[in-house]
Amino acid sequence: MPCPLCDTLARVRAAAEPAHIADLAVSTLILSEDQGCPGWCVLVLTDHHEHLESLPPPLRARFLEDLSAAAGAIRAAFPDVQRLNYACLGNLVPHLHWHLIPRRPGDPPGAVWSWPGPAQRGNAALPTRSALIHAIRSALPRPTAPR
Amino acid sequence: MPCPLCDTLARVRAAAEPAHIADLAVSTLILSEDQGCPGWCVLVLTDHHEHLESLPPPLRARFLEDLSAAAGAIRAAFPDVQRLNYACLGNLVPHLHWHLIPRRPGDPPGAVWSWPGPAQRGNAALPTRSALIHAIRSALPRPTAPR
Repeated sequence: MPCPLCDTLARVRAAAEPAHIADLAVSTLILSEDQGCPGWCVLVLTDHHEHLESLPPPLRARFLEDLSAAAGAIRAAFPDVQRLNYACLGNLVPHLHWHLIPRRPGDPPGAVWSWPGPAQRGNAALPTRSALIHAIRSALPRPTAPR
Repeated sequence: MPCPLCDTLARVRAAAEPAHIADLAVSTLILSEDQGCPGWCVLVLTDHHEHLESLPPPLRARFLEDLSAAAGAIRAAFPDVQRLNYACLGNLVPHLHWHLIPRRPGDPPGAVWSWPGPAQRGNAALPTRSALIHAIRSALPRPTAPR
């Protein structure tokens, strides 16, 4: 069955995914299409699995370590961020992925999913997206080697 | 500053919290007030911390192990559950807690936070809540000792 996140990872491997930030141990960090919260990232598990609780425990632990590394980088990249929202939902795209959403004072209240579509999507143009990607990539603990 | 989840944990310690399911290694599992998805749980870190990415790594790892144990129990308790949604938000209550939300075929689409309030809250009466608590508690790996 076609999987949009497997497609994204294939573009990453082909160096043809402009949202690619970095490859971590068992996952790939990309900038979300939605940028209502600037720096909103998606951490995609490299292999196609659909249920966090069914992952082999060592793989789950590494995925969660990648999550922590990505979260730390986002916090370090944006000093105006007040807190991060973490969510692994899979209601629309089941391939395991985490949303990492930087929240700032003055954001609309509540979870981003309660916001109207345009507020979720934001209006970040390509240069802004590139700057966000560069800032997060630079804040990761160390440069990650290409696969 | 008063913290509603510290208050909840105090009621758990006093055996006066009807939503209490179980104490895990570094956290306490309670049934959410919102039951639009029957079995919706909240996993509350025992100590008051507000940022997952700033936790001491061993504590974060144990909290995430508790999360996996709770998730496994919820899946085991309810065979009709299709997937779990995991979210650590903290926008309204910053004390670290995970939402664990069992999703079933036929649910409204998308994240629960996009649903109208009554759909999020559901209408589970007390006997239903007690049955949900019992089912999840029984599915946890082993009985947890009271603190």
